[in-house]
Amino acid sequence: MAIPPAPDALTSDDFPVLWPVGTRWADNDMFGHLNNAVYYQLFDTAINAWINTTTGLDPLTTPALGIVAESGCRYLSELAFPDSLVVGVAVTRLGNSSATYRLGVFRRGEGQPITALGHWVHVYVDRDTRKPVPIPDPIRALLSTAR
Amino acid sequence: MAIPPAPDALTSDDFPVLWPVGTRWADNDMFGHLNNAVYYQLFDTAINAWINTTTGLDPLTTPALGIVAESGCRYLSELAFPDSLVVGVAVTRLGNSSATYRLGVFRRGEGQPITALGHWVHVYVDRDTRKPVPIPDPIRALLSTAR
Amino acid sequence: MAIPPAPDALTSDDFPVLWPVGTRWADNDMFGHLNNAVYYQLFDTAINAWINTTTGLDPLTTPALGIVAESGCRYLSELAFPDSLVVGVAVTRLGNSSATYRLGVFRRGEGQPITALGHWVHVYVDRDTRKPVPIPDPIRALLSTAR
Amino acid sequence: MAIPPAPDALTSDDFPVLWPVGTRWADNDMFGHLNNAVYYQLFDTAINAWINTTTGLDPLTTPALGIVAESGCRYLSELAFPDSLVVGVAVTRLGNSSATYRLGVFRRGEGQPITALGHWVHVYVDRDTRKPVPIPDPIRALLSTAR
Repeated sequence: MAIPPAPDALTSDDFPVLWPVGTRWADNDMFGHLNNAVYYQLFDTAINAWINTTTGLDPLTTPALGIVAESGCRYLSELAFPDSLVVGVAVTRLGNSSATYRLGVFRRGEGQPITALGHWVHVYVDRDTRKPVPIPDPIRALLSTAR
Repeated sequence: MAIPPAPDALTSDDFPVLWPVGTRWADNDMFGHLNNAVYYQLFDTAINAWINTTTGLDPLTTPALGIVAESGCRYLSELAFPDSLVVGVAVTRLGNSSATYRLGVFRRGEGQPITALGHWVHVYVDRDTRKPVPIPDPIRALLSTAR
Repeated sequence: MAIPPAPDALTSDDFPVLWPVGTRWADNDMFGHLNNAVYYQLFDTAINAWINTTTGLDPLTTPALGIVAESGCRYLSELAFPDSLVVGVAVTRLGNSSATYRLGVFRRGEGQPITALGHWVHVYVDRDTRKPVPIPDPIRALLSTAR
Repeated sequence: MAIPPAPDALTSDDFPVLWPVGTRWADNDMFGHLNNAVYYQLFDTAINAWINTTTGLDPLTTPALGIVAESGCRYLSELAFPDSLVVGVAVTRLGNSSATYRLGVFRRGEGQPITALGHWVHVYVDRDTRKPVPIPDPIRALLSTAR
């Protein structure tokens, strides 16, 4: 059995989905690097752009909303605008109503070292009642491809 | 010995520092609630405004920068613009170069239930070398009051 | 007839509505001052918080949406986190479907000099057809008080 | 003499520089479209990425800072995440200390109709005194190519 790499040793090659994202001038804070909150915007962007452009579901009308229940990030090295980046996306747990992701932030290019390691839990809830509902089938099918 | 409350049972009374923060129209995302990344902007704002306004240190010139090494948040119930909020700040670990915070997001008022529970690790580094340095004395003195 | 002050000479006393807004750590960009785009977030926040909290209309369900058709800002002096601010709001034109605002950004306190002068045009459109509709009566009544 | 097109009739072919920019999940506000303040982040990003990547100047250390003195935008049609966009950049006035830009936001592709028309004034100031200084030569040379 292959021993999985330690989180700090992950590279972009370890993620089944790599979604390109850009940086913005205003992402850099007074310390001249990407502000910590920006990483969560990038995670959100990669996960949702991947799901929405692949499944065609419209977040304004779909009855099941993927709400963030938990998020986290370890910042391993600094990034700064105008870096061009990719977010690595992997599904580490696929439950009835919830999905857990491992996320990585990388400079573009093959086999890049990880600069930030994220985790993310989406819970699907009904738009009106806000009660958990099963993950919609097209999304479940997509997530299954990124284990 | 007092048994500490479970995280979900924390109220605003359980935090030694309560820092008022506002919400913005653009904080609400397509689901009509505060976007998950906004919470990290609020954490950053509360911690830094508390430190900077109390110690008078200027983040543009201070030689020791408090860099975020790790952050995380559990979202327990929804908030939305135009809510007025407070961020509860507590220091749970005070090391040589790093400090760990417990954070809570609350609506304003006494004894409010927690809506989001955060954690946050600041590592102090030299502005030029980016190597860890001791937490500056005025900041250490302040953090010691929020254990 | 009173001669109106030149725009640069406006103070917070010249605005009928003054809405308090906060600043955030991440609002400061690499130059150590509030990024130019942040001012538009503050304008949006002041106008919408004023309208929504006063009229009780819910932006997620109201059939008439106030869409920004035009915005602009002249930056007269620098601001920076952790400044506490107010946005001055005045309605300079009230049409059938659209309203034009003059906006000012001020530090808190009486008779403060203007630091940024904004203008803003909201056009009300139907949520579904996106065609212009009359400004809803409760909003029109409120705007009439801020001429 | 060629008659210039009316602003609303501009296409991406009318801009000498076209800079690709992305959209983010959190850019969409409660109305399901790009929030108005986001356009200014995109303008800032395009202008600065173009200048910084071409001239190699570092905004954290360069002695002459390009500060925004004025900005504005007319929103002509709606955009939404996950659209991929380009910002068109043209220099319409090149003074001693200041430069004025015309900006356009377009979907990617040739001859795209304009969706938002911006203007922008940068004034170059000394990092320490904040007094106007001449536009640095490498930046002036670059801007001259985008008239």
